Amino acid sequence: MAKAVSGNRNIKLTIAYDGTAYHGFQRQINAITVQQILEEKLSKIFLHPVTVNGSARTDTGVHAYGQVVNFLTSGAIPVERIALASRGLLPRDIVILAAQEVELSFHARISAVGKLYVYRIHQSPTANPFLRNYAWHIISPLQVSAMQEAAQAIVGTHDFSAFRGANTTQVVSPVRTIFRAEVQQAGDIIEFRVWGNGFLYHMVRNLVGTLVDIGRGRRKNSDMGALLAGKDRSKAGMTAPAQGLYLQEVFYDSTHPGMC
Amino acid sequence: MAKAVSGNRNIKLTIAYDGTAYHGFQRQINAITVQQILEEKLSKIFLHPVTVNGSARTDTGVHAYGQVVNFLTSGAIPVERIALASRGLLPRDIVILAAQEVELSFHARISAVGKLYVYRIHQSPTANPFLRNYAWHIISPLQVSAMQEAAQAIVGTHDFSAFRGANTTQVVSPVRTIFRAEVQQAGDIIEFRVWGNGFLYHMVRNLVGTLVDIGRGRRKNSDMGALLAGKDRSKAGMTAPAQGLYLQEVFYDSTHPGMC
Repeated sequence: MAKAVSGNRNIKLTIAYDGTAYHGFQRQINAITVQQILEEKLSKIFLHPVTVNGSARTDTGVHAYGQVVNFLTSGAIPVERIALASRGLLPRDIVILAAQEVELSFHARISAVGKLYVYRIHQSPTANPFLRNYAWHIISPLQVSAMQEAAQAIVGTHDFSAFRGANTTQVVSPVRTIFRAEVQQAGDIIEFRVWGNGFLYHMVRNLVGTLVDIGRGRRKNSDMGALLAGKDRSKAGMTAPAQGLYLQEVFYDSTHPGMC
Repeated sequence: MAKAVSGNRNIKLTIAYDGTAYHGFQRQINAITVQQILEEKLSKIFLHPVTVNGSARTDTGVHAYGQVVNFLTSGAIPVERIALASRGLLPRDIVILAAQEVELSFHARISAVGKLYVYRIHQSPTANPFLRNYAWHIISPLQVSAMQEAAQAIVGTHDFSAFRGANTTQVVSPVRTIFRAEVQQAGDIIEFRVWGNGFLYHMVRNLVGTLVDIGRGRRKNSDMGALLAGKDRSKAGMTAPAQGLYLQEVFYDSTHPGMC
């Protein structure tokens, strides 16, 4: 792929996508990703090769309501026309929600000060065909209050080694700050919402795997704090399936209510 | 396909399906339908060819929360095992919600005394990638109160020729009774719910096309009654797209609250 032209404008896009059909966000050889499709279509709109910076990778099957990307362009198209121009070009599972021109120093990943992830569980004795790609279906009843209590153990600044993806390199620091964590139920949907300054690979899904063990009564509420302190990935729960996870919002302003 | 064996048991199934991947419910040559998949898998469970009667055809892309089918079997599998046995066999977009043994005289279509259809509209300036196959996306604002008022004109027993599918034969009587019709909004979702003793081909989608014209202010509220009285399909609105339509429930008991 040709290198993106440098440009005198920096465009920030907020995008939503259904990750079901994609091998994650980030460009890969021989696999269709959201980034690749987005860059192809933006290149048609801006008439030069476009390379975007994404705020976060999302894995195969993971969704986004509020992924943020930025890219440089020399093109003159006004920001208020970008979403409309993209509508006929992008597949219907990727939508540009908002576009704005930002300072040249803005970078979707580096400038981010926090993110909100949502993990959706469908707790029901029967499956729902409409949720098969959008939630983790769990048949057994879950103690939501126990999950909510256990989730409070992750709030604060911790070494999250116990919940980091097993196959990742240990180069990146495992210390992250979680601002808030909530487990709430509405009907047969149970949502885990977690606000933090950053997340390790598979961290949210690994936290959910352990929270579900607690909800099922297979672990005690206090296990969450003990697992965190033990820093041993092999002791924590399974990685929850990808289809329940949503990158909900990315924060660039440390005074945002999600940041405290 | 081999004829179904006659049997000494009559099984009623309630099924939900995401219609996105199917050419409707009813078996067809050279197209994958819900009925075909269901019959294939039931034949494996019951160890003889199974032919089901569906309560209603649904078109390509139309969904069901509560489609009802019945079939005769000589097999001995208890009803409470059917849903579980089907889980590993059926694709995840078709789910058996309930199974019960019924009198031999029960027929999913002929015994039905009423149905509830739901039509879902997503009214928003921006598309939602998660609703692309599950609602009709309408950008312009809609006057929900006008739609609700107009919908009352269809309640009662009427000749619905103005809202019947254009290419259908005129053999079937166009007279149907609508028990109740509601248009309600929750956030950016507007739902049309209609309870009736039966529905002509494309009738719900044709009603929605006209209701949306009224919601947009392109027609007056009183047009619904006038169109009905005129019995002229060419005067009414467009056929709303398939993906917003759900067969929600089928009634077999005339004392059901949905029946009045």
